[in-house]
Amino acid sequence: MAYNLLKGKKGIIFGALNDQSIAWKVAERAYDEGARFVLTNAPIALRMGTINQLAEKCEAKVIPADATSLKDIDNLFRESMDILGGKIDFILHSIGMSPNVRKGIDYDNINYEYYHKTLDISAFSLHKILSTARKHDALNEWGSVVALTYVAAQRTFVGYNDMADAKAILESIARSFGYIYGREKKIRINTVSQSPTHTTAGSGIKGFEKLEDFAERMSPLGNASADDCADYCVTLFSDLTRKVTMQNLYHDGGFSSMGMSLRAIQQYEKSFEECEPQ
Amino acid sequence: MAYNLLKGKKGIIFGALNDQSIAWKVAERAYDEGARFVLTNAPIALRMGTINQLAEKCEAKVIPADATSLKDIDNLFRESMDILGGKIDFILHSIGMSPNVRKGIDYDNINYEYYHKTLDISAFSLHKILSTARKHDALNEWGSVVALTYVAAQRTFVGYNDMADAKAILESIARSFGYIYGREKKIRINTVSQSPTHTTAGSGIKGFEKLEDFAERMSPLGNASADDCADYCVTLFSDLTRKVTMQNLYHDGGFSSMGMSLRAIQQYEKSFEECEPQ
Amino acid sequence: MAYNLLKGKKGIIFGALNDQSIAWKVAERAYDEGARFVLTNAPIALRMGTINQLAEKCEAKVIPADATSLKDIDNLFRESMDILGGKIDFILHSIGMSPNVRKGIDYDNINYEYYHKTLDISAFSLHKILSTARKHDALNEWGSVVALTYVAAQRTFVGYNDMADAKAILESIARSFGYIYGREKKIRINTVSQSPTHTTAGSGIKGFEKLEDFAERMSPLGNASADDCADYCVTLFSDLTRKVTMQNLYHDGGFSSMGMSLRAIQQYEKSFEECEPQ
Amino acid sequence: MAYNLLKGKKGIIFGALNDQSIAWKVAERAYDEGARFVLTNAPIALRMGTINQLAEKCEAKVIPADATSLKDIDNLFRESMDILGGKIDFILHSIGMSPNVRKGIDYDNINYEYYHKTLDISAFSLHKILSTARKHDALNEWGSVVALTYVAAQRTFVGYNDMADAKAILESIARSFGYIYGREKKIRINTVSQSPTHTTAGSGIKGFEKLEDFAERMSPLGNASADDCADYCVTLFSDLTRKVTMQNLYHDGGFSSMGMSLRAIQQYEKSFEECEPQ
Repeated sequence: MAYNLLKGKKGIIFGALNDQSIAWKVAERAYDEGARFVLTNAPIALRMGTINQLAEKCEAKVIPADATSLKDIDNLFRESMDILGGKIDFILHSIGMSPNVRKGIDYDNINYEYYHKTLDISAFSLHKILSTARKHDALNEWGSVVALTYVAAQRTFVGYNDMADAKAILESIARSFGYIYGREKKIRINTVSQSPTHTTAGSGIKGFEKLEDFAERMSPLGNASADDCADYCVTLFSDLTRKVTMQNLYHDGGFSSMGMSLRAIQQYEKSFEECEPQ
Repeated sequence: MAYNLLKGKKGIIFGALNDQSIAWKVAERAYDEGARFVLTNAPIALRMGTINQLAEKCEAKVIPADATSLKDIDNLFRESMDILGGKIDFILHSIGMSPNVRKGIDYDNINYEYYHKTLDISAFSLHKILSTARKHDALNEWGSVVALTYVAAQRTFVGYNDMADAKAILESIARSFGYIYGREKKIRINTVSQSPTHTTAGSGIKGFEKLEDFAERMSPLGNASADDCADYCVTLFSDLTRKVTMQNLYHDGGFSSMGMSLRAIQQYEKSFEECEPQ
Repeated sequence: MAYNLLKGKKGIIFGALNDQSIAWKVAERAYDEGARFVLTNAPIALRMGTINQLAEKCEAKVIPADATSLKDIDNLFRESMDILGGKIDFILHSIGMSPNVRKGIDYDNINYEYYHKTLDISAFSLHKILSTARKHDALNEWGSVVALTYVAAQRTFVGYNDMADAKAILESIARSFGYIYGREKKIRINTVSQSPTHTTAGSGIKGFEKLEDFAERMSPLGNASADDCADYCVTLFSDLTRKVTMQNLYHDGGFSSMGMSLRAIQQYEKSFEECEPQ
Repeated sequence: MAYNLLKGKKGIIFGALNDQSIAWKVAERAYDEGARFVLTNAPIALRMGTINQLAEKCEAKVIPADATSLKDIDNLFRESMDILGGKIDFILHSIGMSPNVRKGIDYDNINYEYYHKTLDISAFSLHKILSTARKHDALNEWGSVVALTYVAAQRTFVGYNDMADAKAILESIARSFGYIYGREKKIRINTVSQSPTHTTAGSGIKGFEKLEDFAERMSPLGNASADDCADYCVTLFSDLTRKVTMQNLYHDGGFSSMGMSLRAIQQYEKSFEECEPQ
């Protein structure tokens, strides 16, 4: 079902790898809602993934850009405005990677060079995107920027490693820049804190499936899927949420407000059952 | 601009007094978006206000109901389902009143009978609405309930009196019932924490105008108006936000995430200027 | 080990029932630290419990008081100042009771008269204590008030029922009155959000033991005991924490900042193991 | 007044520059309370400041260490254990510096190399201290680590620049490492979120004095001083707060829980007064 919520709007969507990606689903939904946009990802991700299928489906151009490179981002904005014929209305930031996680290095033995790299990719990239946009005056008034995050920024999850810190600073950047860009150009910047999601990135986390099961049972509405997230992002890009800014918005079926559910504690209780001799 | 976001949806809207009311604006927007609904308010509010104009404009019935009376709420749901021809999809709770505030009784000398009354009207009413709806199985799956609140539930504002406590417990009720109603029927329940708003209720608070000015200067996007709030509520009633529940959602132009803005501190600095002899 | 942290300080301790009570442990520790105080509880609790043993041990008077009765609280302050020879320096509020929980009434079918009673006992009692103290000017400057609470005020726990709402409004009252009493008399008011604790009250909650086990495995330092809580309260009553006010202080071995621990998820995983045929 | 709260405890205190420093006050108070400790700071800070006076007064050794250098931190722990004759019980992290702030570079035009440097100095230093301590098994069970932070990590303050992001990630590191070090060795790690304080670092922030005035009027107990902070840190290093971990503890006279105070709004109102012609 489509509503033309983004009719006439122009966007840039970062981070679609394959059809498991949240960014992929956001692109599909944004297209359905009448938006036109540019797709972008790091050159290596473009090679590994299947973004061209998405581009075709959404009538979108793909512009390669390393989100840690000011030069690439600069080029991305120039080309995007050129292609789309004017200023940008919305941006999705769905970028995160930790070399420490990738290489299985524990948080307490972290490699600090990698740590900087985690932040460069997962958090500073948002700052670079925003400051580049601002330099080019590339966003229309009341433009909307959404970055995806996870509740690990507030509460510690075993194995989430330095991505927890990366998400914490990502959310801080959204606030810090949200103030500046809001007062000047009415740009709103929010983070969406999403349920554990079966993406290529998500599934890579150790113990992901048991955590996903626990979250599913804890959340009264169950985990939010990538499709659900796409729907939600569409509302945040639309003109109907203009006064929401500098917020971290939980989109998680209620998980973040739960201490203990009946379904989760019942499952937990089973762990104490002894096998009976037969 | 309308999108048919609420096409075919049925609702009950509590709390429209006159065209300053947030509930009034929500009704207008919901109507534009294709919803049909019942309007309700306390009998005395119906007499004092101008709700019939709204009803006419929105092709809505008005059903009087004291939101503290289980009997009235019971009747309201029966009649509403009758009029609308089926189960309800959304509810707006925009109800708040403190006899202590009305009578100018300070928080430290509060009248405890009035205190209970403040909670009865401003918070328990939400519980009664939800438990009555549940008894009648009156809400459709994925139904959405929104209650309006204020940041005074988290931070103390001089003069807000026992309404701060009422909003704190209102938000707690939204979570507590959100869990139960979510796991059973996929109903989602959220509170929207709105900027200080020029309604009949809001303007009654002592020092409201200076506070509003301060909030305006603190918020990078400025205060959110009743119209803005109506837009936002529409997204929360729509199918696009199905996995958002048990949340307190700030709709305030960024105020809640600000510590100090340039505009507010510059104004504040002026307060120290001496008048020069001329 | 004692430090004389409360030497010369006078207090009132609400809520000691038996030697499982947190209030009991606080009294013992306060006594060790040089404080003198009055013990109080509802007449029925005095009969059911063993408070006289505590009173003897701590050289304290017991003054019966129903914490919902302004008259009783008024009398309590008069007598306490009389017995202790002057103004009060610290108050512990460890009071909570829900008739709905007691009678096994589910939250969605709550009895509203009982609901008011839950709040009267568990939350308004703090307001009444504070407003009575203020009327008598019964607290010394920099006096410290601590009320015990639980994380259910922020996150929903199955079975915690209307006590969740009661704790939410208790914490709001601590803030609201903390502002007024702070600006006037430098009184500080905080809530301590304690781990699930094996008290007579705590153990009464349905499924308490499984929840306690889960909390123990989630908390890196394990659950905080009543003894631990007593130690912590002593620091909050002392002169070393004078600028801490209007805060909700988690004392829970880290539980509130955890999303998932290794120990908890490992236990959870066991619940999926099948018994093997033998 | 001293209580022997830290009798027999051994510590390392980072960040004392001169007698305005919070770390300086903490050292004085820890000494009064019976602790022995090592003082440390960056070589340049040792030259600029007057730490030797403090060392003499507290009978403490000074060991230079650049808190961004693993080698220096490694050496610091070795020497400290040597000098103090065993493992460490408490650590104060009072380190923060932003080259962007120093050089007056605005947040939206930030230098990213400096940004990394801000984090290296102000946040990663905590991680390096903890991971080094853990490698050497240098902390006693129930050891306590406190890092100083500011509410800018939660709410945006104009001019606080990338230090806001640095404090956000600092608090995240305290949680992330608090989980690991807690489950293994019962080490607790907290951050103290302090009022704006008249230190050499604090006073350097643009518009510091007006902000300090505003905070003073907003906080019911007034701003917390460096001396107040030292008192509070002593309680957090003591054995009385053993189950408090992974928390961000506001020590700010109530500021963080205020929306608007009477004193602040009265001052604010004066800014609208017109000078009368004379």
